[in-house]
Amino acid sequence: MAIQRIAILGTGLIGASTGMALREHGFSGHISGWDPNPQQAATAQERGAIHEAVSDPISAAKQSDLILLGGPVFTILEWLERLGPELKPGQLVTDVGSVKGALVEQAARFYNLEGRAGFLGGHPMAGKEVGGAANADADLFKDAAWLFTETPESYAMETASREIADEWREWPLKFGCRVLDLEPARHDMLCAWVSHLPQFISTAFTALLEDEFGSKDEVIPIGGRALREMTRLGSSPFSMWRDIAYTNTDAIAASLLALEQRLAHLRENLKTPELREEFLLANRFRSKNNQ
Amino acid sequence: MAIQRIAILGTGLIGASTGMALREHGFSGHISGWDPNPQQAATAQERGAIHEAVSDPISAAKQSDLILLGGPVFTILEWLERLGPELKPGQLVTDVGSVKGALVEQAARFYNLEGRAGFLGGHPMAGKEVGGAANADADLFKDAAWLFTETPESYAMETASREIADEWREWPLKFGCRVLDLEPARHDMLCAWVSHLPQFISTAFTALLEDEFGSKDEVIPIGGRALREMTRLGSSPFSMWRDIAYTNTDAIAASLLALEQRLAHLRENLKTPELREEFLLANRFRSKNNQ
Repeated sequence: MAIQRIAILGTGLIGASTGMALREHGFSGHISGWDPNPQQAATAQERGAIHEAVSDPISAAKQSDLILLGGPVFTILEWLERLGPELKPGQLVTDVGSVKGALVEQAARFYNLEGRAGFLGGHPMAGKEVGGAANADADLFKDAAWLFTETPESYAMETASREIADEWREWPLKFGCRVLDLEPARHDMLCAWVSHLPQFISTAFTALLEDEFGSKDEVIPIGGRALREMTRLGSSPFSMWRDIAYTNTDAIAASLLALEQRLAHLRENLKTPELREEFLLANRFRSKNNQ
Repeated sequence: MAIQRIAILGTGLIGASTGMALREHGFSGHISGWDPNPQQAATAQERGAIHEAVSDPISAAKQSDLILLGGPVFTILEWLERLGPELKPGQLVTDVGSVKGALVEQAARFYNLEGRAGFLGGHPMAGKEVGGAANADADLFKDAAWLFTETPESYAMETASREIADEWREWPLKFGCRVLDLEPARHDMLCAWVSHLPQFISTAFTALLEDEFGSKDEVIPIGGRALREMTRLGSSPFSMWRDIAYTNTDAIAASLLALEQRLAHLRENLKTPELREEFLLANRFRSKNNQ
């Protein structure tokens, strides 16, 4: 086993869940953890996600084979820059950020170069509408996709780091994930559609309900499963989504505009046969992709 | 017990589920059922939703204390007209249709008049993205709202029908429902927001995914819970929603337009502090209404 020591910087929902999944699936090495909010690291330790909550993340990173960066995208961007000069071949930095283009671009400046540590971008397609180590779950990644974004640069990382990378790629499979590789820009476009757009739909719809009915009690008591599902992500924290909106703006804006136009098309055709075509298209997608 | 015989005309998902819930919760009388598709009635009988699948729905209705109309809204509109002259005081027609204004208006022509049967509009806020008696469930209504739309006309129904109506109003409580009364126009406005708009969001989003990615296999494998939830209602049958779109057009169009504008507002503010306000509004709605 090449990976003996892991440092998780950012022990919120995804970071802590990764630690729990590692231990659940037999990782026998040592996991240290750090979070800008010490309470998060303490909770992660209490929940068994990490062996040790450290106060010096750079020192912990320097002593680790694998450094996993969690938290919002801007936080990961900062850590990539801070850690770059500190790490060496034989070490690998990976992340769990929701946007990959900006991260891979940043990593290219500091990693996968001669004499430097390796970087391999990653993104587990799992999450909750509530963050934090308290909501972490060893089974969060079961049946989810864990995306990697190998690039010409990552394939060129030093051999000693590649050994870590190849071993790390095995772990999501043990967690029960489907593992796929995507080119970073394609990753960001696809995630805009399947993850970011659903979040912004839910935020827009839920904010609208708050504006329309916020002071009254009449909406929720009559709502059923559709309302619960459509507003669930309305609980998502802005702190996480601000960075995603800022770093994947174009792809998100394009998907939002397309949906606005589609909704307008439905609205203009509520009494025409065109409405049937929209239902049939949706039915077709679902019948091929019934989950 | 004033209700001894019930006729369910339209033994699809909701009609059959109502029959199953009645028997599950101790209804000891007789339930006959009819559906324009005889296979649906046969399935409802096999599943224990009705005692008997009848071939003459008008005769069954004339012999029943309570006639429950299921199926799409236009079908219910037709049955209201066909049954009106056939029924008498002491009988009650109710329905499970998703739109109430058009139905109550139609009913006012034939019911709740001197010498006529009573009508009380109803609407269980429960459903599935798949229809049919095969998907019926005695527990479908548990924890759901069952809305009634009493009107000055329904309060004026003949005493013998009112006795049936008051007894019928007890049954959803036995099913585990919250029972609420709403004025029909208010019902249609609120349901546009909490039920019809979620359906059209899901249809638009799912149809868009089919257009963008229909011939490729790359979207669904990477999607998580958010994608599953946002596309679930994409399976809903047009046959049911055509009538809802046609009979609640103005309220649905108004909610769609409001959402289009809200999505455009988000899109134009992906990099501004205004995005935070939208997330906070959505968070506020959810924190008050956490389900």
